[in-house]
Amino acid sequence: MDELKLRILTDGKNLGGGILKVDGFINHQVDPRLMDACGRELAGRFARVNPSKVLTAEISGIAPALTTAIHLGIPVVYARKTKPITMPDQIFLTLAPSHTKGRTVELIVSPEYLGHGERVLIIDDFLATGQTIMGLVRLAQAAGAKVVGIGAVIEKVFEGGRQLLSSLAVPIEALATITDMSEGRIVFAD
Amino acid sequence: MDELKLRILTDGKNLGGGILKVDGFINHQVDPRLMDACGRELAGRFARVNPSKVLTAEISGIAPALTTAIHLGIPVVYARKTKPITMPDQIFLTLAPSHTKGRTVELIVSPEYLGHGERVLIIDDFLATGQTIMGLVRLAQAAGAKVVGIGAVIEKVFEGGRQLLSSLAVPIEALATITDMSEGRIVFAD
Repeated sequence: MDELKLRILTDGKNLGGGILKVDGFINHQVDPRLMDACGRELAGRFARVNPSKVLTAEISGIAPALTTAIHLGIPVVYARKTKPITMPDQIFLTLAPSHTKGRTVELIVSPEYLGHGERVLIIDDFLATGQTIMGLVRLAQAAGAKVVGIGAVIEKVFEGGRQLLSSLAVPIEALATITDMSEGRIVFAD
Repeated sequence: MDELKLRILTDGKNLGGGILKVDGFINHQVDPRLMDACGRELAGRFARVNPSKVLTAEISGIAPALTTAIHLGIPVVYARKTKPITMPDQIFLTLAPSHTKGRTVELIVSPEYLGHGERVLIIDDFLATGQTIMGLVRLAQAAGAKVVGIGAVIEKVFEGGRQLLSSLAVPIEALATITDMSEGRIVFAD
């Protein structure tokens, strides 16, 4: 998605260590027009797998997952990292190591909103190590739902997430795929 | 907003103690069509105050703030509760007591995205005690920005938030105003 790549080159910053700062338009301040365009593009790419629900993880997955869900016209569930008081006692919970947080986080979904027979499209802002997304896959599987696709706004291929997720044999799409961030570079695939 | 009120009566649950469970369509699972309609309605009500930026707090403020920002065509910033590694060392931080969490949370905004001269519209899912929103007001003021309006999807008037915020002398709008949740009731204003 050329508009996104251009924005990353213009306003993104390579902070070193594989850390890409895009908090001016993706995950602290959000450019709503760009995020809506990302959601439209992801919705278009996954319409053929006929998802019934979008699943993401709070916090920064919410914006792209919501705009994707708006364009698909299906509900979106965001996994919580702490259990709110409004959630029942019996929940789906998995642990996922967080690369950027340097610790393990809980991902929690209420069984009320993820169930048997759902066709789940997982959307997140980043596909990096794939650990958060794999946690969401486990939640969907625990609920008896079927993962039918995985989409990310930005993929850092050198962190190996796509390889980790390849055993699922579902389409994986990223709107901007970065192949190299060494020595201050931001290099996109093709 | 009749559609929202009807949905609260149909799918919301009064859990007692002033706790309204709306996690089937607002703050865990999100109904994208309804959330988009809420954003459109909030955008319409606040267009006249000419906001330049929407400000909210993670987590459950993100969805209504994003759809409002999409319809206003202005950026949205969500205050973080933990400082990400992509944020500079110098930040705006305030503490806000969280009613539902039973503890104080940090609200953090990068000075890169909230500055002098901004006209800030604060949006959240709930206006209850008003403490989170007051925290966002302090962040805006610390940045030299002007708060021009406050909008919420659902207001629980009996928790006093509107009164707390009234000294700001800015328009406060809620799409569904609940006046009474005693004895299992959900009673709307007018």
